[in-house]
Amino acid sequence: MIKAGIVGGTGYTGVELLRLLAQHPQVELTAITSRTEDGLAVSDLFPSLRKRVNLRFSDPAKASLETCDVVFFATPHGVAMAQSPALIAAGVKVIDLGADFRLKDAAEFEKWYGMAHTQTALLAEAVYGLPEVNREKIRSARLIGLPGCYPTTMQLGFAPLLAQGKPLVDEAHLIANSASGVSGAGRKAEVGSLLSEASDNFKAYGVKGHRHLPETVQGLQAIAGRPIGLTFIPHLLPMIRGIHSTLYARILPDAMDTDFQALYERHYADEPFVDVMPPGSTPETRSVRASNTLRLAVHRPGGGDTLVLLVVEDNLVKGASGQAVQVMNIMFGLPEDLGLGQIPVSP
Amino acid sequence: MIKAGIVGGTGYTGVELLRLLAQHPQVELTAITSRTEDGLAVSDLFPSLRKRVNLRFSDPAKASLETCDVVFFATPHGVAMAQSPALIAAGVKVIDLGADFRLKDAAEFEKWYGMAHTQTALLAEAVYGLPEVNREKIRSARLIGLPGCYPTTMQLGFAPLLAQGKPLVDEAHLIANSASGVSGAGRKAEVGSLLSEASDNFKAYGVKGHRHLPETVQGLQAIAGRPIGLTFIPHLLPMIRGIHSTLYARILPDAMDTDFQALYERHYADEPFVDVMPPGSTPETRSVRASNTLRLAVHRPGGGDTLVLLVVEDNLVKGASGQAVQVMNIMFGLPEDLGLGQIPVSP
Amino acid sequence: MIKAGIVGGTGYTGVELLRLLAQHPQVELTAITSRTEDGLAVSDLFPSLRKRVNLRFSDPAKASLETCDVVFFATPHGVAMAQSPALIAAGVKVIDLGADFRLKDAAEFEKWYGMAHTQTALLAEAVYGLPEVNREKIRSARLIGLPGCYPTTMQLGFAPLLAQGKPLVDEAHLIANSASGVSGAGRKAEVGSLLSEASDNFKAYGVKGHRHLPETVQGLQAIAGRPIGLTFIPHLLPMIRGIHSTLYARILPDAMDTDFQALYERHYADEPFVDVMPPGSTPETRSVRASNTLRLAVHRPGGGDTLVLLVVEDNLVKGASGQAVQVMNIMFGLPEDLGLGQIPVSP
Amino acid sequence: MIKAGIVGGTGYTGVELLRLLAQHPQVELTAITSRTEDGLAVSDLFPSLRKRVNLRFSDPAKASLETCDVVFFATPHGVAMAQSPALIAAGVKVIDLGADFRLKDAAEFEKWYGMAHTQTALLAEAVYGLPEVNREKIRSARLIGLPGCYPTTMQLGFAPLLAQGKPLVDEAHLIANSASGVSGAGRKAEVGSLLSEASDNFKAYGVKGHRHLPETVQGLQAIAGRPIGLTFIPHLLPMIRGIHSTLYARILPDAMDTDFQALYERHYADEPFVDVMPPGSTPETRSVRASNTLRLAVHRPGGGDTLVLLVVEDNLVKGASGQAVQVMNIMFGLPEDLGLGQIPVSP
Repeated sequence: MIKAGIVGGTGYTGVELLRLLAQHPQVELTAITSRTEDGLAVSDLFPSLRKRVNLRFSDPAKASLETCDVVFFATPHGVAMAQSPALIAAGVKVIDLGADFRLKDAAEFEKWYGMAHTQTALLAEAVYGLPEVNREKIRSARLIGLPGCYPTTMQLGFAPLLAQGKPLVDEAHLIANSASGVSGAGRKAEVGSLLSEASDNFKAYGVKGHRHLPETVQGLQAIAGRPIGLTFIPHLLPMIRGIHSTLYARILPDAMDTDFQALYERHYADEPFVDVMPPGSTPETRSVRASNTLRLAVHRPGGGDTLVLLVVEDNLVKGASGQAVQVMNIMFGLPEDLGLGQIPVSP
Repeated sequence: MIKAGIVGGTGYTGVELLRLLAQHPQVELTAITSRTEDGLAVSDLFPSLRKRVNLRFSDPAKASLETCDVVFFATPHGVAMAQSPALIAAGVKVIDLGADFRLKDAAEFEKWYGMAHTQTALLAEAVYGLPEVNREKIRSARLIGLPGCYPTTMQLGFAPLLAQGKPLVDEAHLIANSASGVSGAGRKAEVGSLLSEASDNFKAYGVKGHRHLPETVQGLQAIAGRPIGLTFIPHLLPMIRGIHSTLYARILPDAMDTDFQALYERHYADEPFVDVMPPGSTPETRSVRASNTLRLAVHRPGGGDTLVLLVVEDNLVKGASGQAVQVMNIMFGLPEDLGLGQIPVSP
Repeated sequence: MIKAGIVGGTGYTGVELLRLLAQHPQVELTAITSRTEDGLAVSDLFPSLRKRVNLRFSDPAKASLETCDVVFFATPHGVAMAQSPALIAAGVKVIDLGADFRLKDAAEFEKWYGMAHTQTALLAEAVYGLPEVNREKIRSARLIGLPGCYPTTMQLGFAPLLAQGKPLVDEAHLIANSASGVSGAGRKAEVGSLLSEASDNFKAYGVKGHRHLPETVQGLQAIAGRPIGLTFIPHLLPMIRGIHSTLYARILPDAMDTDFQALYERHYADEPFVDVMPPGSTPETRSVRASNTLRLAVHRPGGGDTLVLLVVEDNLVKGASGQAVQVMNIMFGLPEDLGLGQIPVSP
Repeated sequence: MIKAGIVGGTGYTGVELLRLLAQHPQVELTAITSRTEDGLAVSDLFPSLRKRVNLRFSDPAKASLETCDVVFFATPHGVAMAQSPALIAAGVKVIDLGADFRLKDAAEFEKWYGMAHTQTALLAEAVYGLPEVNREKIRSARLIGLPGCYPTTMQLGFAPLLAQGKPLVDEAHLIANSASGVSGAGRKAEVGSLLSEASDNFKAYGVKGHRHLPETVQGLQAIAGRPIGLTFIPHLLPMIRGIHSTLYARILPDAMDTDFQALYERHYADEPFVDVMPPGSTPETRSVRASNTLRLAVHRPGGGDTLVLLVVEDNLVKGASGQAVQVMNIMFGLPEDLGLGQIPVSP
């Protein structure tokens, strides 16, 4: 049994991790920390876990996280940076669901997150935890910077196009029109996330620059091995879970004869959690609700030179906690889908 | 033109008052105060009011509220109590949408609201602003304590039964099973009101004792002229606007032959904002959305001795701001429905 | 492995059965019938099941249901009545999620469902599939009439009160104020269930008499061994899944000293799927979403003589398909919770 | 007073027309037809109109529509084509909210709508009812083909760019990523529009070709006086009302110095129903709910060569019935905003 600890389990990625790990046959939950909820039974905060998770939140100072085999950080940026060095030194594997180890360039991190990066050596070592791209590196990693929710859809959506030897599309002008359920904003008391504000409503946000933009550009460039350009417009959906990304790319004249459907099917043929749907499909967010599957469809409206990719995931699962468990399975040599067999809940 | 001011216009009853007053043909909005938003254009906070309301929020200290003809308080309890004496002394009529002048017994107020009542003389003078019950007193009032949202549905729902000379139902065991949209909780950043918490969910709350219970008991006793007993269980609906109260009363043996439908139709025959629906109807909250109408239906399932009343209102209109405008019209001798002709928005 | 077939799998209880059975370690799904969708891959109708359920719908005439060990009917009333005799004769156990075998009185069935009951011998034999009440009879049953969604909450909510030797409450005047998500209406194209009609809205329905009333009265009387009287008012919630029943009972003078919390905890101490919450709790529908758990809380507002019970379940799981699997486990001598370990999905 | 009739008033654009016309100071509603609901009081079908609209539906054969001054068609395609010639011959002005008179090319109409166009002379005469583009032609029109809901956002969003003498953007590769509330699908009993299917979900649809594509291309080409190319991907939002279009255009090298914000503000300076928001704004659909206002914002992420326009409207008002009233006002020489002063309902 893998002894697992969670730092910062009072948010949505935290409770989703608890749901998944409590059902995982090879995991023993041993500690969950919260500065503000020390002593509270987890199931008092999250009644959905009554009789299933018997842990109590404990103050980070009291929790013996260094006795864990793996520790997940489901925390605001800065926390994993501060606490992970000691854990890694103690031989604990660390999976950070936050942003501390995503951007490889410390200056970029400082620009987008407003704080200096204090662990540049660890940052250099950290592996970006996107299994479909980095599986081999994850296998031997000590420290994982897990992708953000939007970036997972954008990278897995564009990857087959960019991973070819020569460009198929105008890589300088990629467009990602994305929309996320409100849970992506976390369990924070903010007026903009109130039901009375966010339900029965739709809007763009972060148009000037969202933190998931530099992360995605970095990831896409790593896949392509070439510079890319991306316009990313996120929108807020009046619902809890689910991300839908509508991706646009202009096909280059030389690539007009490409069979893109076949390209995608081939690229993801062996992936347990990526479902390339049949031609003509329009994936729905609910078709992946509460599961670790990402579905996508390839379109070329009117047979023209604009390629359109439709990508859906559950932002709390494949976009966060499920991907974290998938990565853990890889790190510990377990079957990659162990404990992740939940069938999507629909309707 | 009536010069109107609003204290505390940054919440939902505030913005709804602005919507209604900006369309009122006899009202000139002259001031709206907010300590935190001093100087901000109202339409910057509420883009729905762009090009329709040109006011800016001003600090209470700067706003010349005493030059208004009427001032509405859309504030947490305590504020109207503190500021209204000076306004009333200056000849300004005051309509408090909050709780300061609802409970006639200062001890009850202190028990439920956790603060002493400092204006007991004004409290004695204040008129409870439920037009269908207190129309004549409202006409000459200087100070109005406007009913809460739930109490309006419960009182107008039970009133025809209780207003008879002798009891028709077991008045000691009335039951009100109510449900409200989340906007009733106000525009406050609280975790429980987040879309991710309150949507796709339903629960009771305040079962031990909700502040609208003593207010309603007081009102029902005033209508009946006798003691009454009430069990009130509020619930939270996964939607923004609307209150639905399902009221239960046991018919007394002597009253089994009563034609309750006729009783209700007669009682409300001349009311512009109360719609007694035909037998067999099930009023929907959306049928009154964004309007000042309250609809109700009278049922007697299986022809037995349990009477069931179904009552709906828009909690922000008839349950708050619309009722405030209705009361203002009465106080200033205007047609009671002036500026309140909005047809419900459906779907 | 238990060979399981489903008749009528194109509705919501059907797809939920598929989700649960596909994850059940002792079940092999062998057939699913649909007259209208013959030949269609199940996962083409329900993309949430892609790569998890490989069956195709087949015409009832072609499906060899008699080779199954158990057949579930997720059909409108009348279908199970027509098809189950042949299956039972062939030694197949039948679990009817519909209404054909719920009401023991054929005349009552005809009155509420508008068709004669053609299988009165089977009706007499059929066991009402509520495990917490009928576990022993279920163990040896050949034919199960599974409870409706609302009746499960009402019966499990009132059962501890009624199962005592002498009455504790006024059993002639029980009240059930219930509310259900729209999935309870099924996957039928009806205007009233459109998102544009049912979302952002709340209303009562079926006030004159809902089909779940006679079923519940029958069940409660069986539990009490005495006549009972019930007023049942269902309401439609603007959400997909979840039922919340608020139950009211007047405590008899002799029973005023009863410790109702203890009574409920004792009654359900050994039940795997009933969670009696601590005093003061208000169970939320989302706390049981997509799981087979029913949670309830016991209240006595103001310490008076009105007892209030708050009960929640997922109408598609404990209210239908999960309960069906629970019953199947009992019938086949499996652990009662096998394949039903899903943790509620929240948020 | 203008005598107005409505053909096909049982859908959502019909009830919204009724809401607006019943509040219009210069309109007298004289007839509303429905083949299926002959004799039914309008307020029995739409309780929101109780005590406000006293008409009954009448069979088209009985209604004397030719005595109206104006008749609105809120019908499926084909109906206005069949009935409008006689009305126009009788001197009645016709405003078709449906699709019969939108596409100027009869062959295109037949291709997209699957029926031959039988009124090609009227089609040639019909004016496309987009006031901000066609105001002068509308003034003297006898027959209006009112724009679709999506096309209104796309055309008003792109118009200032295209209306310049020389191209500013790559007009062959415009992209419109749009999302609409479910009311856009109408009040039709279809499984895909059920709350249980469409709520808590998001997906693209009509990717292969939506009927609003040829209409929009035709309109944009008329504005530009040049051929244009458009990729249009509509999506379905889990809410009732509101359309949000996110428009993308690549700025041409020669136009990189353009002040697009100023261009848009200038273009719409005198428009009563188009609100160009300040730089950096992200318009919300709720900010126009139940009103005839369209709001838009101009963005240029990262200062690059991709221009992004965010456009919102209420699909039932500016996207349909409100625009119809605006057009009627123009046709009858009334102030353009008469009866359209509703302030958006928010929250």
